[in-house]
Amino acid sequence: MSAQQPTDAPAAEATPAAAPTAAAAAAPAAEGGEVGEGEGPSKKAAKKAEAKAKKEALKAQRAAERAAAEAAAKAAGGGAGGEEVDLATENYGDVAAFATKGGLRFTDGAAPVALPQLGEEHVDKAVRLYGWIQNSRMQGAKMCFVELREQQDWTIQGVLAATKPDTKENIVSRAMVKWAGSRSFESCVVVEALVRRAPEPIKSCKVSGYELHITKFFVVAAAPQTLGLTLASANKAVNNFDDTAGGEAEAAAEAAEASADKVAEGVKNLDVSAESTIAGAALGTHLDNIVMHKRAPVQQAIANVRYETEKLFREYLDARGFKGFQAPGLIDAASEGGANVFQLTYFGKPAFLAQSPQFYKQYEIAGGRKRVFCVGPVYRAENSNTPRHMTEFTGLDMEMEIQESYHEVLHMLEGVLLHIFRGLKERCVEDIETVRAVYPSTDFLLPEPGKEVRLTFAEGQQLLREHGPAEFRNVTDDEDMSTPQEKALGEVVRQKYNTEFYVLDKFPESARPFYTMEDPTNSEVCNAYDFFMRGQEILSGGQRIHEAGLLEERMRRKGLDPKSEGLKEYVDVFRQAGVPPHGGGGIGLDRVVAFFLNLPSVQLAAYYPRTPKRLLP
Amino acid sequence: MSAQQPTDAPAAEATPAAAPTAAAAAAPAAEGGEVGEGEGPSKKAAKKAEAKAKKEALKAQRAAERAAAEAAAKAAGGGAGGEEVDLATENYGDVAAFATKGGLRFTDGAAPVALPQLGEEHVDKAVRLYGWIQNSRMQGAKMCFVELREQQDWTIQGVLAATKPDTKENIVSRAMVKWAGSRSFESCVVVEALVRRAPEPIKSCKVSGYELHITKFFVVAAAPQTLGLTLASANKAVNNFDDTAGGEAEAAAEAAEASADKVAEGVKNLDVSAESTIAGAALGTHLDNIVMHKRAPVQQAIANVRYETEKLFREYLDARGFKGFQAPGLIDAASEGGANVFQLTYFGKPAFLAQSPQFYKQYEIAGGRKRVFCVGPVYRAENSNTPRHMTEFTGLDMEMEIQESYHEVLHMLEGVLLHIFRGLKERCVEDIETVRAVYPSTDFLLPEPGKEVRLTFAEGQQLLREHGPAEFRNVTDDEDMSTPQEKALGEVVRQKYNTEFYVLDKFPESARPFYTMEDPTNSEVCNAYDFFMRGQEILSGGQRIHEAGLLEERMRRKGLDPKSEGLKEYVDVFRQAGVPPHGGGGIGLDRVVAFFLNLPSVQLAAYYPRTPKRLLP
Repeated sequence: MSAQQPTDAPAAEATPAAAPTAAAAAAPAAEGGEVGEGEGPSKKAAKKAEAKAKKEALKAQRAAERAAAEAAAKAAGGGAGGEEVDLATENYGDVAAFATKGGLRFTDGAAPVALPQLGEEHVDKAVRLYGWIQNSRMQGAKMCFVELREQQDWTIQGVLAATKPDTKENIVSRAMVKWAGSRSFESCVVVEALVRRAPEPIKSCKVSGYELHITKFFVVAAAPQTLGLTLASANKAVNNFDDTAGGEAEAAAEAAEASADKVAEGVKNLDVSAESTIAGAALGTHLDNIVMHKRAPVQQAIANVRYETEKLFREYLDARGFKGFQAPGLIDAASEGGANVFQLTYFGKPAFLAQSPQFYKQYEIAGGRKRVFCVGPVYRAENSNTPRHMTEFTGLDMEMEIQESYHEVLHMLEGVLLHIFRGLKERCVEDIETVRAVYPSTDFLLPEPGKEVRLTFAEGQQLLREHGPAEFRNVTDDEDMSTPQEKALGEVVRQKYNTEFYVLDKFPESARPFYTMEDPTNSEVCNAYDFFMRGQEILSGGQRIHEAGLLEERMRRKGLDPKSEGLKEYVDVFRQAGVPPHGGGGIGLDRVVAFFLNLPSVQLAAYYPRTPKRLLP
Repeated sequence: MSAQQPTDAPAAEATPAAAPTAAAAAAPAAEGGEVGEGEGPSKKAAKKAEAKAKKEALKAQRAAERAAAEAAAKAAGGGAGGEEVDLATENYGDVAAFATKGGLRFTDGAAPVALPQLGEEHVDKAVRLYGWIQNSRMQGAKMCFVELREQQDWTIQGVLAATKPDTKENIVSRAMVKWAGSRSFESCVVVEALVRRAPEPIKSCKVSGYELHITKFFVVAAAPQTLGLTLASANKAVNNFDDTAGGEAEAAAEAAEASADKVAEGVKNLDVSAESTIAGAALGTHLDNIVMHKRAPVQQAIANVRYETEKLFREYLDARGFKGFQAPGLIDAASEGGANVFQLTYFGKPAFLAQSPQFYKQYEIAGGRKRVFCVGPVYRAENSNTPRHMTEFTGLDMEMEIQESYHEVLHMLEGVLLHIFRGLKERCVEDIETVRAVYPSTDFLLPEPGKEVRLTFAEGQQLLREHGPAEFRNVTDDEDMSTPQEKALGEVVRQKYNTEFYVLDKFPESARPFYTMEDPTNSEVCNAYDFFMRGQEILSGGQRIHEAGLLEERMRRKGLDPKSEGLKEYVDVFRQAGVPPHGGGGIGLDRVVAFFLNLPSVQLAAYYPRTPKRLLP
């Protein structure tokens, strides 16, 4: 195996030596900057030494290239002298080299094709394909196999075979074969090829029924010869969340439990991780190699599920008369109590980042919008280093007028979440399977229509006392639930009702914020609910107080000053005109995705996770 | 006219005196907190005095109420003594008073109805309606007309008529008529009523063919007796942007021009502003009275157009394989040059707010997503006080792989914008009319399909030299355009090509950021474009450099250090693997809405405008 191929790539018998041949050198070499800069930052010293060695090697290589190129030019010019003349120089090379020669030339009619669209109509036709080199191996000196990936996990086998000496069209030279077979993995390429039916299904590729007989092979952008994170590693379960979990015992324990228990089944079926000996990497390594992290099919699939979740949320509410809006991120005063807020300087004065769109959703309702939703970032300056927390996450929020009962809202939220879960199961079958191959999970259990589980908080505590673990035998109805309690209750509910999605209603007054409406028939509890997935909270909401007087009274009872900055402006809004009763809820998008897919951390569901210890990339 | 009615309300002959009658007092009075707190903050001293006076008045009023209630109870109990017994006490009052009596009672089958759905099937049936009192007037002592608004500008006329003494069902007492007729405007109510065909069309109401014969009338939440901003005023053109425009001469001039020129035609057709003497208010007053600002039909219509714009953006791109994602708001280093960035403290270290999702869109492409878009907040710490600037606005951003030419991107962006404009014209006919009645505008001119106007920057400058105002006779091809130049060119293009939407391509290299790809055939210009609406820029974009070496070279040429914080991490991403050529663009949602509707300021298109001088509400 060549030392310059990723070490975890399937071993290739005939991988060529790294030193380019004379012919390969005729096409310009990859730029120096693209070599060996991809590793994680944890091995800085080793990296430095390695970089120096590489630099030296590169220097030597370049000198060799120059010499070889000169020799080749001489040979071509003279038409004689042992070495074969390369008649395929127009058919391969780095794209940049063709800019001054009028660009690449493709065969007329060789239209670009995306692999998911490749079909019988393309057989024996020339096509163009843009993608990445996922794998390659030489088969003797005249043939090479190149596995190309076009998007997510869409791969196809390509083959380059040197043509006979008397060939006039689509010439593939030995030098071309050798060059193509030695390009670094994850280089971006464009090829022209004839589509052929595969003699037998190619198991290692998603497109198993066809192969590409490559006649032109250009590198659009070269990858480094050593990737900081290979695709195979990137597609394994993250094996360590320490980078973001820091030193907190709870978090480390949680993460360890998650990655040990749930990932135990390991990887199945995925070619990119076919060798079971390939090691997974820490989340920090993934994020330091964001490009490869994102290219891994598992992350592509998670991103698809996340996007589909947002779409399902929007489409359900839009169809029911909800209007989207944007709540501001910059706010004048730290509202909602003032804790855990990021502060910034705003033209010489302090300002803050919104912790939720709560007040603004209410202003929309007060302002005559009957039903609104918003999808946007929410910020929490909470120094929590657990797999469930981030300092920035995406909120799916909604708020609506209430006519008869706040259960109109509860049912709407239940409806939108069921629509999301059922929609994901229907639309994301393949993506869910892709994720499951890396992060095993059971199918997310849903209640049958009409059998939704809605318990009061008191009923939940009773279930815990009666059927939960011994430590929860004495829980009371007026104390809020802890995370372990929630998880235990989730287990009891699953066993009793065969669902992993349920609602807990009528939370104790003490457990909810000042803007929550009390139950008019029992002031000990609120018209407020949480929703759970696999025993973990994903939504919090309830009816809000819509009258200024009542709001002030509740603030005072909670030890807040209704005249304080931020709160005063909020209360005053309810004095501006008669505000209808209303309620809503906020869903954590990252959590919904993570819990649905049973990921070991919400950070895997985020595009660019932000934690107290990480703001990069 | 009663002093307690909004002063610009149509004068009502028989508005009852403010002191409640004995019968009215039988239903609890509105809470103290809801009285007279709605004014703008500019008249603080006057307000204070007024508040004190009101407090005194309220105290006296309450004493009178108590006495009256006692008298009424006595009368009812004794069944004798001059005063009429109120047999309708269950049919009206404040909702809160019914909480302890088991809630409101409505007639079986009187289902809630939304005014847009009211039709022939409801005639002679009982319905329930939730809405606001938009207007009311007494007609003698036995009858009162109440105009109710259910959403946006959906209004209907209601009538309460005292029933005859021997009536057994649906009793409406004189006291009930009087009470209903004297509730403050913009109070939130629920009524039960029989739907009747209107004897003749009721011009003042949008639902002109029916009227409601009200049998139950409950106030859900009372408005103050004096609104800080009446609906009629809120629905007039904003007459002053000073509050946010501050002292800057340019801004003041621009705003003045906008509100003077464009609003001159004034208000048409809208009942809420039927009296032409009603004054508009300053933007500051609007924002201080956010509830009434938002309730104005013009703002509801703008919000609808804005939401529809976002939807059209999403649906066009989604149908073409784009995937949505969220770019982070919190970033580690001030990228893109470092100017105009908000800084905050992130667990003891500095962090910044993202000025654009630019880098993250590129990371998505590098990470194997072929086409992405994102809708989210972008922050600019720019101390610009003009009608075109805000410190926080919503970006509609996209990025995609390029195969043959960056014009693939340009055409995609042109396509999505044309889809938006045509979609708005089709789906928002009424909303556009509603806005036009307050902010006059001409129909936004679009190119015919196939006749899109795409000029190079040089061609644009040539047009300006040849057909623009004298001051632009000497503009050159290598200097960026100023705002007045852009406006002048917009005018030339409109006259020459009959379109107010066009593209300027191939901007000078010096006018674009370091990450922009140069034209490979002419390094003086870039593969970069701006899009314009009515002569104003709404989109900026282009092809990006996708190779680390080239990127570093350009940074150095632009005087930036590729090793500096923020830039180094960005460049390194392009070393992680081969990144395909790509390009994209960012659209300012607020600008698109404002320019399409020809609003005098982008702040009117924003839900909660943020400017250097304002972060509230």
